[in-house]
Amino acid sequence: MKLSSRIHAMQESPVRKLVPIAQKVKQNGKKVYHLNIGQPDIETPSVFMEAIKNYDSRVIKYSFSQGEPVLIDAIRDYFKKDGIIFDKDDILITNGGSEAISFCAIAICDPGDEILVPEPFYTNYNGFTGESNVNIVPITTKAKDGFHLPKKEEIVKLITPRTKAILFSNPGNPTGTILRLDEMEMIKEIAIEHDLFIISDEVYRGMAFDGLEGLSMGSIKGIDDRLIITESVSKRYSACGARIGAICSHNKGLTKEIMKLCQARLCVATLEQIGAAALYQLPQSYTNEIRDEYQARRDVVYEALQKIPGVVCEQPKGAFYVVVKLPVENAEDFIIWMLEEFEIDGETIMLAPADGFYATPGLGIDEARIAYVLNVEDMKRAMYILEKGLIAYNQR
Amino acid sequence: MKLSSRIHAMQESPVRKLVPIAQKVKQNGKKVYHLNIGQPDIETPSVFMEAIKNYDSRVIKYSFSQGEPVLIDAIRDYFKKDGIIFDKDDILITNGGSEAISFCAIAICDPGDEILVPEPFYTNYNGFTGESNVNIVPITTKAKDGFHLPKKEEIVKLITPRTKAILFSNPGNPTGTILRLDEMEMIKEIAIEHDLFIISDEVYRGMAFDGLEGLSMGSIKGIDDRLIITESVSKRYSACGARIGAICSHNKGLTKEIMKLCQARLCVATLEQIGAAALYQLPQSYTNEIRDEYQARRDVVYEALQKIPGVVCEQPKGAFYVVVKLPVENAEDFIIWMLEEFEIDGETIMLAPADGFYATPGLGIDEARIAYVLNVEDMKRAMYILEKGLIAYNQR
Repeated sequence: MKLSSRIHAMQESPVRKLVPIAQKVKQNGKKVYHLNIGQPDIETPSVFMEAIKNYDSRVIKYSFSQGEPVLIDAIRDYFKKDGIIFDKDDILITNGGSEAISFCAIAICDPGDEILVPEPFYTNYNGFTGESNVNIVPITTKAKDGFHLPKKEEIVKLITPRTKAILFSNPGNPTGTILRLDEMEMIKEIAIEHDLFIISDEVYRGMAFDGLEGLSMGSIKGIDDRLIITESVSKRYSACGARIGAICSHNKGLTKEIMKLCQARLCVATLEQIGAAALYQLPQSYTNEIRDEYQARRDVVYEALQKIPGVVCEQPKGAFYVVVKLPVENAEDFIIWMLEEFEIDGETIMLAPADGFYATPGLGIDEARIAYVLNVEDMKRAMYILEKGLIAYNQR
Repeated sequence: MKLSSRIHAMQESPVRKLVPIAQKVKQNGKKVYHLNIGQPDIETPSVFMEAIKNYDSRVIKYSFSQGEPVLIDAIRDYFKKDGIIFDKDDILITNGGSEAISFCAIAICDPGDEILVPEPFYTNYNGFTGESNVNIVPITTKAKDGFHLPKKEEIVKLITPRTKAILFSNPGNPTGTILRLDEMEMIKEIAIEHDLFIISDEVYRGMAFDGLEGLSMGSIKGIDDRLIITESVSKRYSACGARIGAICSHNKGLTKEIMKLCQARLCVATLEQIGAAALYQLPQSYTNEIRDEYQARRDVVYEALQKIPGVVCEQPKGAFYVVVKLPVENAEDFIIWMLEEFEIDGETIMLAPADGFYATPGLGIDEARIAYVLNVEDMKRAMYILEKGLIAYNQR
């Protein structure tokens, strides 16, 4: 019995594939600072569990395929604050932002169709598309440009008759880059001129530093029929394990068809939706506090990185990641070495190799993604361990 | 912007597509007995919520991509009771039985590959395969044979070079049929001779009536490398809204590859896994009680159906469904009419049209699936309404 070609073609998660090594060294008593995964240490707001505990849970029933009305309304209110108006049937609740993007790929693309994605990109986009035989065509962006988009003609020349959409995360994972208004307008132009869908992954929205606004693509006029925003409670509300996301679009033909996918898998976990509704109802002040906390962490990390010889990176402007060029040949080898061979007083760090965030072979081999998801003191310690580790690695 | 051919080709859920009509008549004050969906009225065991409430939920973190160890161990213990031994890495936790089957289709089949499925079958199998361009080839079974499998040669002649697996639910949804040992042995023979995977959907296991055992396919020797059992807490533990299922297989090459799909979507909701672990730890006496309750409901329904002129059905032996041939030309029209036009003292019933459970066009047009998921008194009342409704419908 052979397995499918498509499953063989899928990559292992670069964020998770080294986890067994980390588990092993942790079992042997080493402490590992996990900067490899976007799992914040910030407490999930207590309203989440309170809502679940207060729910009448005598029978844990199927939810609606579209999602719990209370959660749909809460997401509509969340967008309304920015003047973005969604109808009740414009929002479909999904198993995290993950399922939102998987469903978009299936609904927009047949096997062999293409989606443009600026690279480096959130590595699981490969999974969400590969499993349904959709091809990602990378738009390469560079650290020296702050990972901003290249000129329009560079993007347009990648478009083929099979190109169906452009997908990006804003704020960017793994880059921390915030799209400028002129970039958003360029995406709009390209999408209209080449009849593409725009899939705007906004799960980090609100986490924009240095006074930047971090606009939703929903604020751009004239693309209502082609824009899909994907949402999640994971990052903004520190509820990664809730697995609650959403597809938001004014294109009623699209949402009607995606409802078939929602119906096929019946529904998303009922209790988690009840909790998530409470999260979306939190005031803006909550999000601002979280943003300020991440900005403080960003400052610690960026300042420390600037001082490490041979490390090159741009200052990230949002989300909670930074892509760094390391003074090593192969970042993955270094990351494994840090886990297995290095420690300071029984402690080490774990990063994510960045090559998995690129679709173009050969890019990112000497880069890593750092998720600054730990508190300021832990991040300081982790950067110290990184600095000493790099010295020791290069003196082997 | 066109949507994909595959999304257009998908059918709407026959179980859920009439829901908007039901919602409308309910808003107008009519009471609807929902026999259209497998949503039991039985309370979810309280251990589910207790486990969740006792969980340290300060940070709702990502779970492991494979699943929470406590849940994996509980599922292993569940199978161990029947002498079926799974290693820790043989079990992958999924978003309900739904995702389990979607993942199997992707991992085993490339676009255009085929899976054999006895029809009538759980209609969402169409969704789980259609979304990844896998084709279901139906093995037609008939009410007059109690929906048991046809002879081996009938099945074998459906096999092509693109056939990769045989998939079935046992006990059967929508048929309530329990596979006999000789049928299980025949499936084994066919799978070995034609090098197929066997996907045994056992989410209704334990619900086997009249003293039948309801064997797991895991009890059959010699197919460890090709057997995949899919599991769920939805039905056995009345926790449909938890969305917790599993893939169970001794084929380590397969589970290793499916882990890529698990990693891509990160994990299944953490809290629900904690609750589900408590459900799997319930004693056998719990499952037996539930089985007895459904058997009592089955008796009420079957007895009532026998007395309705023109209704034809076999006595179901497991799960909580029965497929009935109705004395009408088009069951869907009748079901809509029952919702919109009929009532007794402000009450009516909702069934699922059965044609959506067949892949062969034209089959099941005059059939409906009844889910006997309500208590005995409600089921009696519902059958009374069905009887009177049929008379009124045919006298229009």
